[in-house]
Amino acid sequence: MAGGEGRMAGRMSETEDVTAGILVIGDEILSGRTKDGNSGYIAEYLTGLGIALREVRVVPDVEARIVEALNALRAAYTYVFTTGGIGPTHDDITADAVAKAFGVAIDEDPRALALLAERIPAKDLNPARRRMARIPAGAELIENPVSKAPGFRIGNVFVMAGVPAIMHAMLDNAAPRLKTGTPLTVRTVSTDIREGDAAEPLRAIQAAHPKVAIGSYPYYRPTGFGTNIVCRGKDPDEVETVAEAVVAAFLAAGASAAVERG
Amino acid sequence: MAGGEGRMAGRMSETEDVTAGILVIGDEILSGRTKDGNSGYIAEYLTGLGIALREVRVVPDVEARIVEALNALRAAYTYVFTTGGIGPTHDDITADAVAKAFGVAIDEDPRALALLAERIPAKDLNPARRRMARIPAGAELIENPVSKAPGFRIGNVFVMAGVPAIMHAMLDNAAPRLKTGTPLTVRTVSTDIREGDAAEPLRAIQAAHPKVAIGSYPYYRPTGFGTNIVCRGKDPDEVETVAEAVVAAFLAAGASAAVERG
Repeated sequence: MAGGEGRMAGRMSETEDVTAGILVIGDEILSGRTKDGNSGYIAEYLTGLGIALREVRVVPDVEARIVEALNALRAAYTYVFTTGGIGPTHDDITADAVAKAFGVAIDEDPRALALLAERIPAKDLNPARRRMARIPAGAELIENPVSKAPGFRIGNVFVMAGVPAIMHAMLDNAAPRLKTGTPLTVRTVSTDIREGDAAEPLRAIQAAHPKVAIGSYPYYRPTGFGTNIVCRGKDPDEVETVAEAVVAAFLAAGASAAVERG
Repeated sequence: MAGGEGRMAGRMSETEDVTAGILVIGDEILSGRTKDGNSGYIAEYLTGLGIALREVRVVPDVEARIVEALNALRAAYTYVFTTGGIGPTHDDITADAVAKAFGVAIDEDPRALALLAERIPAKDLNPARRRMARIPAGAELIENPVSKAPGFRIGNVFVMAGVPAIMHAMLDNAAPRLKTGTPLTVRTVSTDIREGDAAEPLRAIQAAHPKVAIGSYPYYRPTGFGTNIVCRGKDPDEVETVAEAVVAAFLAAGASAAVERG
């Protein structure tokens, strides 16, 4: 189809990968005071959409560091998602840093101000709170019902809040604008074989099926040791074949093994 | 003092920053299947040692990506800590990637093999498990009592396991080899003022005390809204002064405010 179809959301062709990077912004993550749960949440969300997360970076509230990391990520991946640094205080510098990275102006945005005014009485709309209406030129807003202060999309970058409940709402609002990929089929084989004994059969199966990624994750539980083998790929039949080959190899070695579907 | 003193562990002078980056390696983190708790753990640990964590990157189990990220981080920071990818299976490629990044050879290390032999009976020491003894030339081992398979230090890079209990043990063993910085003094002011009302007084206090980092973190609890103000710096007296100025400003605005020490 003609007419900008390529820029619209929709399922990509099976051969085209849709990829993503995440940029987590905040001194509080790097000090360890706040534990980042946002990147894990976004990772799972993107996996569900068939978008392959390829990198996460965490940087401090320092403009040059945000600009440098954002420019690296947005050049490398289909999409970039940022979290943090869009509140009202002096340490919230993400919107200005994003404008700088894109080389565009930034100013108070009337659409964003209108959203803030829905929630904040005029007498409380002080200069600090008005900072939350600063949006780079050319950006679309990403609304959220929790605090009303919007995130925004500019180019392939989605700028979201760091407060988890607000970020979740923004991601839900951003998702319909995303091209999605072929979702991965995932099969996990649970086995009581130790990882060091699983390695040789896995290596052979991996070599025979390079399009299915086979990951091996040992576990240590009070009931004993074992390994989870995670098989991921875009072709459901090949993933099933690989999972069954893994089970057969472990059973032949005298271990227990079964596929967990889902 | 002469004679290599500069390379020994010990408290740095107050003017010299000791910095760090973390490289988390693993497809399972990027898919969201496994949530990374290691970088938050290391972040807190380093903060306690007065080492400033400046960046975290998460990359997949792909050699070129590990090499590229490691070379960027090790050039930028005093230390780099990696987690993940040092087990026995085909997807464990960290040791080889680190050797490649440093441009050194890698082979089975007799010291590492001896450690494995303490735990693993000779009949079970198959080629896959022997892979865990592959150590880049010139590296020191980092032992762990949990699994015996060692991590290693090469140059300013500490290579550790991804399994949290093993990583914790390795970090404890690595810590005495680290130069430490001046620990930060941290004071948190808890207040029921909303972040948008806290912003202007904070901006003025921050401008007057550029050496103390003031972070503002809103919270939303069933009992109401509020903000935690975190003041960090190397000079304990100045941090106290800043925290007291924050409390005074909020009390003057009619809010509650108190310093939490610790």
